[in-house]
Amino acid sequence: MRPRVIVNVAMSADGKLSTRERQQVKISGSEDFARVDALKAASDAVMVGIGTVIADDPSLTVKSEANRQARIAAGRPEHPVRVIVDSTARIPLDASVLRKGSGQRVVAVSEKADPGRVAELKKTVTVVVAGKDSVDLRTLLEQLGSMGIRQLMVEGGGTLIAGLFSASLVDELYTFIGNIVIGGRDAPTLVDGDGWIRDSEFARLILSDFVRIEDGILLHWYVGQGQSSGTTGR
Amino acid sequence: MRPRVIVNVAMSADGKLSTRERQQVKISGSEDFARVDALKAASDAVMVGIGTVIADDPSLTVKSEANRQARIAAGRPEHPVRVIVDSTARIPLDASVLRKGSGQRVVAVSEKADPGRVAELKKTVTVVVAGKDSVDLRTLLEQLGSMGIRQLMVEGGGTLIAGLFSASLVDELYTFIGNIVIGGRDAPTLVDGDGWIRDSEFARLILSDFVRIEDGILLHWYVGQGQSSGTTGR
Repeated sequence: MRPRVIVNVAMSADGKLSTRERQQVKISGSEDFARVDALKAASDAVMVGIGTVIADDPSLTVKSEANRQARIAAGRPEHPVRVIVDSTARIPLDASVLRKGSGQRVVAVSEKADPGRVAELKKTVTVVVAGKDSVDLRTLLEQLGSMGIRQLMVEGGGTLIAGLFSASLVDELYTFIGNIVIGGRDAPTLVDGDGWIRDSEFARLILSDFVRIEDGILLHWYVGQGQSSGTTGR
Repeated sequence: MRPRVIVNVAMSADGKLSTRERQQVKISGSEDFARVDALKAASDAVMVGIGTVIADDPSLTVKSEANRQARIAAGRPEHPVRVIVDSTARIPLDASVLRKGSGQRVVAVSEKADPGRVAELKKTVTVVVAGKDSVDLRTLLEQLGSMGIRQLMVEGGGTLIAGLFSASLVDELYTFIGNIVIGGRDAPTLVDGDGWIRDSEFARLILSDFVRIEDGILLHWYVGQGQSSGTTGR
């Protein structure tokens, strides 16, 4: 049984996750950071695509000491399992997500990944092979489910999120919309990939609630009827 | 003196204005259409880029009979002046915006535009020449101001809006965010163009108010400190 999938991203008022050069931009403030950290602490695993690892080098750890202690007190690991979708196993071994903080890492690769790289990774992380040329996200999620992961938080990027929507694997979506305009036809957006063309293909959302946070607004959507076609995760 | 510039667009939850093939998508419903029509009826002019004319063939007329009658009763023309930013004068002469409804049209071209095309256009519309290779939006807006236009509504697309932000010419921004995911790295977004890179370049917005409308949410932003660099209108 696959975990519940909650996508959480911060985007500019014009729907960009970062600049065209994939430089991270401060879109939200400390109040929203606290919300994101709490959501992470409440999740069994947190997942990103390899593009995000290479662009931002996030650690994906729980930042708040109190949140970490609460997890430990509840008999859970200090940090959620950290999952990287990386079809060709190109993650740098010194990436922060592999180095910083305790706990299990899962690197999901496709059958196309170099066996030498995979063997190297296997020394320190759990490698899941799923899919021929790119990671089959449904298979990966089933595997994560069998590892006891019931709630999976996804932090980006736009290609991975597109793959998840393509396979109808998203249950909830939080978008914090910040008070800046980044612009750029080539800047990454919340859902990249190929996108969809026909009305029947678009994922339909249900707007649950929204709240002003600092200088922006947080939208909380549930995903209604899914769709499937086109894009898959990298 | 340039007019007050109000940008109004509908975008998907992932910030797209249409599909990657630039097919229009129904993002909002009748309640939001009525709001947009009222804003249009309250404006002296409504402006789009040539890309939007070619992709969507909008008429840019006021749709509601009551709104048109109210304009006439107030001694104003039935429809706002319709302005098309079209650097190379490639607008088709049978475009709906030129054919449908009464009232003045302004086609803004650059010095690069073919003189034959410009002469042809001048038979039926007001041609404003502003800018060498692409339309200089600040000059255009000054000209519109001198024509008595005090409020200008901009309906897209992303390239024109990027040009307006680039030149610090946007005063207000309405974004209706609909409950669908369109996706696609190549799909048009609210602000395309080259985009910006540095923190000092991003336009800063002020979130004025927001309201749920049907299945989506309308965000109303004011534009704070501007920025200028990069992109210009086509």
